[in-house]
Amino acid sequence: MKMVDVGQKPKTERVATARGRVAMSPESVARVRQGEVEKGDVLAAARLAGIMAVKRTPDLVPLCHPIAISGAEVTLELGPEAIEIAATVRTVERTGVEMEALTAVSAAALCIYDMLKSGDRGMRIEAVRVTHKAGGRSGTFDQD
Amino acid sequence: MKMVDVGQKPKTERVATARGRVAMSPESVARVRQGEVEKGDVLAAARLAGIMAVKRTPDLVPLCHPIAISGAEVTLELGPEAIEIAATVRTVERTGVEMEALTAVSAAALCIYDMLKSGDRGMRIEAVRVTHKAGGRSGTFDQD
Amino acid sequence: MKMVDVGQKPKTERVATARGRVAMSPESVARVRQGEVEKGDVLAAARLAGIMAVKRTPDLVPLCHPIAISGAEVTLELGPEAIEIAATVRTVERTGVEMEALTAVSAAALCIYDMLKSGDRGMRIEAVRVTHKAGGRSGTFDQD
Amino acid sequence: MKMVDVGQKPKTERVATARGRVAMSPESVARVRQGEVEKGDVLAAARLAGIMAVKRTPDLVPLCHPIAISGAEVTLELGPEAIEIAATVRTVERTGVEMEALTAVSAAALCIYDMLKSGDRGMRIEAVRVTHKAGGRSGTFDQD
Amino acid sequence: MKMVDVGQKPKTERVATARGRVAMSPESVARVRQGEVEKGDVLAAARLAGIMAVKRTPDLVPLCHPIAISGAEVTLELGPEAIEIAATVRTVERTGVEMEALTAVSAAALCIYDMLKSGDRGMRIEAVRVTHKAGGRSGTFDQD
Amino acid sequence: MKMVDVGQKPKTERVATARGRVAMSPESVARVRQGEVEKGDVLAAARLAGIMAVKRTPDLVPLCHPIAISGAEVTLELGPEAIEIAATVRTVERTGVEMEALTAVSAAALCIYDMLKSGDRGMRIEAVRVTHKAGGRSGTFDQD
Repeated sequence: MKMVDVGQKPKTERVATARGRVAMSPESVARVRQGEVEKGDVLAAARLAGIMAVKRTPDLVPLCHPIAISGAEVTLELGPEAIEIAATVRTVERTGVEMEALTAVSAAALCIYDMLKSGDRGMRIEAVRVTHKAGGRSGTFDQD
Repeated sequence: MKMVDVGQKPKTERVATARGRVAMSPESVARVRQGEVEKGDVLAAARLAGIMAVKRTPDLVPLCHPIAISGAEVTLELGPEAIEIAATVRTVERTGVEMEALTAVSAAALCIYDMLKSGDRGMRIEAVRVTHKAGGRSGTFDQD
Repeated sequence: MKMVDVGQKPKTERVATARGRVAMSPESVARVRQGEVEKGDVLAAARLAGIMAVKRTPDLVPLCHPIAISGAEVTLELGPEAIEIAATVRTVERTGVEMEALTAVSAAALCIYDMLKSGDRGMRIEAVRVTHKAGGRSGTFDQD
Repeated sequence: MKMVDVGQKPKTERVATARGRVAMSPESVARVRQGEVEKGDVLAAARLAGIMAVKRTPDLVPLCHPIAISGAEVTLELGPEAIEIAATVRTVERTGVEMEALTAVSAAALCIYDMLKSGDRGMRIEAVRVTHKAGGRSGTFDQD
Repeated sequence: MKMVDVGQKPKTERVATARGRVAMSPESVARVRQGEVEKGDVLAAARLAGIMAVKRTPDLVPLCHPIAISGAEVTLELGPEAIEIAATVRTVERTGVEMEALTAVSAAALCIYDMLKSGDRGMRIEAVRVTHKAGGRSGTFDQD
Repeated sequence: MKMVDVGQKPKTERVATARGRVAMSPESVARVRQGEVEKGDVLAAARLAGIMAVKRTPDLVPLCHPIAISGAEVTLELGPEAIEIAATVRTVERTGVEMEALTAVSAAALCIYDMLKSGDRGMRIEAVRVTHKAGGRSGTFDQD
């Protein structure tokens, strides 16, 4: 096992966006929309949990390089039976930030799950994937 | 926002199991099965990443209580187009360990994604959910 | 130097409240009240930063015992020239939680400072102190 | 909420100094001066707690960028009714280090509080603020 | 791989002592004794690094249980060509604290190494082992 | 005490290798070789623990600079009465990575100890030292 050596790669501006969703009952979505969740403001907490998790990525993902992060944003959208999560992370480094973006989505999803779990046991975290990546040697990449 | 007070609840033995999967190409599954992944042994790394993430749960999930954990296990199974992940966490505490089990599954999934991403850009983390819970006030709970 | 042995002390319910404030210009208070801060929702972020910091206390305060926390809450109030912070932490342990409550106030204050610093260089964190403590051998304690 | 993108800003040498104090009884100051504190050497512990906290800043302050730090120093001075704390942090990065300096002062103050709290319940952390900043786009800044 | 389930074991008072040494030149020992090390007070820093590392043990040692610690102490002694380290850790838990004591010794040794390395490249960390253990099912254990 | 300012030093490619061993009974070595350890795959776990510890170095070693790491590898070899550990860490920074390499060896050793301790109480971590260093102002350095 090894953390692959990236010392020879140039520092370039890089960005990655990941997306995912927490599938839940329409009642749970309504509770979030109406601010009726006992533990507090779900959307604010999940956004912050996502951003803070960007900084924990090297602690969680064993072979991930610890790097400086130049920006991070997490956005949330209420759907009919889900909360949709998107995270965009930026750096100027020798390696990409897909793992940081995916970790942000995962942590935001876990935070949402935690705040709603007492009222909805059927929730699922779904479709966590990279939808955009740019700035590295392998070029730009986009998918749904 | 608050970390709900559980000081009045009794300490009881509790267990939770969470499951999820990383959907990937059959070629990626084959690379894992045959030990041909450049970064190293994917299954060993993912199991360990999952177990270690149990201990980082309170750092990642903002309103989660920091508690003593009495046991944790992560198992992985290769499917035709996915690696299936299960994590079981045990405690003797005033609050359950669903979040710890879900975090273990998420971190194992992120580790798998990280080790395979250079060869498979279409991977997705899917169906992360609690499948078993026992030992708390709310009784036993099972779902697929 | 030592982390004092508390193994002989009984586990009891304990609570501590700490308070403090970030002194700032009336303009900064107004920006928070009106939600005009570029970095986002200051009050939600500070509450969460405070709660999460409770869990980092043993990492920050060298001789502090790592313990299970049973509850934590951070409340914020806008004054004419300050944001007032209060944090209450609960445990059922052999040692008190004053340090956890003080750390929560400090971290909430740092978060507020960070989000407002580009527009107000004269801010100060003031009067961080314990105002209530109960449940340990030394009895109940209250001060302003 | 977002961690503001600093990827376009140039890397420059930056420095920040923060100051603060722990107000306490003259008896507590005397105990520190004479090395009579049961938990050990308060000044050494607080200096180290401050330096180590510089490295935890991105974990504590939600929207703070994780960056490389090139130097840090914490100095302490005994006053008649307080311990005065100063922390200076240096970096060569795209963003400043005020938050790191303020976090160092806060953590040193919490460490001092922790080591003296059994004998002095009236302590307060006061006047935590930035007193010097240089090296960024916004120029040099000094205040008391 | 698994974190072995200890949920059925009773909570008992447990203690472990570990020892080790950093072998170094007599000149390095003299610099420590005379307080001539540029980076600062080596003994105070190493004691604190050891105590703080007790609390990081579950993060470093993958299969180690996260538990409450009731006390910790690190002592250092200057020998003719070494600094001798001893760490004693106490808990009231379902599992022992040998790993915490060994981690404390290791971290204290790394701190000593770091502070002296610019002047002594031949240092070695030696003989890190458990010398005393009591309080668990396996009885008391002592060795040199 | 201070984290020495390295802001004036140029960023250069740097590498460090550290080595050490866990001395144990021939029976323990055989259990590892034959995969008969109840807690799981010792070598995979130790390699991963070592790599992850590289990233925790600034948290453990008080005066160590937090820096970006460009690569890390841990290798293990079974001897007749020991497991031999080597860790190589690379960076492009203003300061070296000896401490990161030594921390990786120490954490891998602690992980090995933890997984074998129920069957072998006489284990010792021995000879943890830097064997190769290159890329800094002080030139290349090699020793056994």
